Amino acid sequence: MGQFADNCIEKIRQKKSSVIVGLDPHLLLFPKQLTDRIKSFEDIADAILIFNKEIIDAVYDIVPFIKPQIAFYEQFGLHGLKAYIETIKYGQKKGLLVIGDIKRGDIGSTAQAYSKGHIGKVELLGKQHDVFGVDAITINPYLGSDSIKPFINDAENFNRGLFILVKTSNPSSIELQDLIVENKTGERSKLFIEVAKYVQIWGQDFIGKNGYSSIGAVIGATYPEELAEIREIIPNSFLLIPGYGAQGGSAEDIKYGFNKDGFGALINASRSILFAYRKSDKYIDKDFQKAARDETIRMNDEINMIIH
Amino acid sequence: MGQFADNCIEKIRQKKSSVIVGLDPHLLLFPKQLTDRIKSFEDIADAILIFNKEIIDAVYDIVPFIKPQIAFYEQFGLHGLKAYIETIKYGQKKGLLVIGDIKRGDIGSTAQAYSKGHIGKVELLGKQHDVFGVDAITINPYLGSDSIKPFINDAENFNRGLFILVKTSNPSSIELQDLIVENKTGERSKLFIEVAKYVQIWGQDFIGKNGYSSIGAVIGATYPEELAEIREIIPNSFLLIPGYGAQGGSAEDIKYGFNKDGFGALINASRSILFAYRKSDKYIDKDFQKAARDETIRMNDEINMIIH
Repeated sequence: MGQFADNCIEKIRQKKSSVIVGLDPHLLLFPKQLTDRIKSFEDIADAILIFNKEIIDAVYDIVPFIKPQIAFYEQFGLHGLKAYIETIKYGQKKGLLVIGDIKRGDIGSTAQAYSKGHIGKVELLGKQHDVFGVDAITINPYLGSDSIKPFINDAENFNRGLFILVKTSNPSSIELQDLIVENKTGERSKLFIEVAKYVQIWGQDFIGKNGYSSIGAVIGATYPEELAEIREIIPNSFLLIPGYGAQGGSAEDIKYGFNKDGFGALINASRSILFAYRKSDKYIDKDFQKAARDETIRMNDEINMIIH
Repeated sequence: MGQFADNCIEKIRQKKSSVIVGLDPHLLLFPKQLTDRIKSFEDIADAILIFNKEIIDAVYDIVPFIKPQIAFYEQFGLHGLKAYIETIKYGQKKGLLVIGDIKRGDIGSTAQAYSKGHIGKVELLGKQHDVFGVDAITINPYLGSDSIKPFINDAENFNRGLFILVKTSNPSSIELQDLIVENKTGERSKLFIEVAKYVQIWGQDFIGKNGYSSIGAVIGATYPEELAEIREIIPNSFLLIPGYGAQGGSAEDIKYGFNKDGFGALINASRSILFAYRKSDKYIDKDFQKAARDETIRMNDEINMIIH
């Protein structure tokens, strides 16, 4: 197994796709046949896992990545998190790179604990074990370098990737992320630009054989101008771009995330793929897999059009 | 059950203590009798739960709060998180208010999912269930108001509390949190001051009968000047102050966290209490409970001295 960034490039080439299918299991949007017999949290977790496996079966040959959002599993406690772990394993078995959307962030020894559990290894009786064992995670930068370093070490040691929140897709991201800040050298820029500069610093020792770093950034499709600015500051990292589809980001909005080589942007869609069957009369509940595949193909085509 | 802030005041009065015992189970620091037969992740979780219960038994009558740091449980997967849940239940049974140190932060529907699982309720067959069911949590502000609102709603509906990261105790917190920012009205201040102002806004509709808000802030004991500044901006919220003891914060450093009424600061110590038995020759491994209690009494006295 090579560096995460190189694995990304390989999968993107193989699938001809830069799409991430976000596995955000909103139960209320599930096809009825999966939820009509739910009587316990265990049943909920079973329904989520069945749904995820069917979605994975429908798209694994045409996308490189899935991204389970841990909150949707964690809310159902241990049962939900079991479904999270099983989803990761199933996705990896199907040859997908799995990005755990966990947005963790804490100080020294605590960051180390998160890191071991999610992307590193936990030692027991002299053996190293995967716990969540995802290929990459998202993390929050508010606490600064010493909160990021433990993750970077594990990413390096175990060929994992990181995506650090720079500019998030939600409307309120402007409140702090867009504040004008003055850095040590007296330059003025928006806060997220300073964070982007840190990502560039953190990632530069970590470049794979294809020229990309395994330390990337998260930047919402809903902010296309900011995307272009960030692309300039972090030329050779992957940008994980959520907000495409249901949140309003279009193919035009995300084009600045790509480099001239056609790589560098990973476009996430969750609801618009998972629940595509609800958007058109041509599908019934039982067709949710086909609808998800059709929408993924459409999205692949739309995105490949702007980069080739 | 009253508002979280009022419950805090009541417990602080009752225990004559503003101390939080942070339950950060560093296995390597555990007394040997608890770890020498560990052969599986299940055994690890059992050892953590036994340790936590013994610590709780040793201090429940002299402190109002415990704060399990979820990372130390999450790193051991489902077994670890089961110990987290059992620790919460045991602490609450013993009359403690439990603060889940989770530092989550995400956008809209994702924040809602975290909130439901940790401080709200999850619905199943028309009934509402606690999942993690802590009394309060820590959250990360980087994503702005719309990432905080779902937590505030649940805090309001279910009498829970929030502690929003403002200025963290680690050395690198200066990198982003101390950047000079210019706000909309052209005023210049450090980023964490802007965050503190948001906490004040978010908390002002949420004041209990004792005049304190259930929306508080996290500010490290390692930054005493910043603590004084934040206390002025957020006069009637609780400040959760980690970094006392092992991280270097002293009683002198945290005095500005308290208001004249003697309330308002919640001082967390983790390692210095949990592993006090390692600090003095007068204790052997089996005395870890007594050592923890002695250190907690010493800390209570030290803190009560500066506020009375």
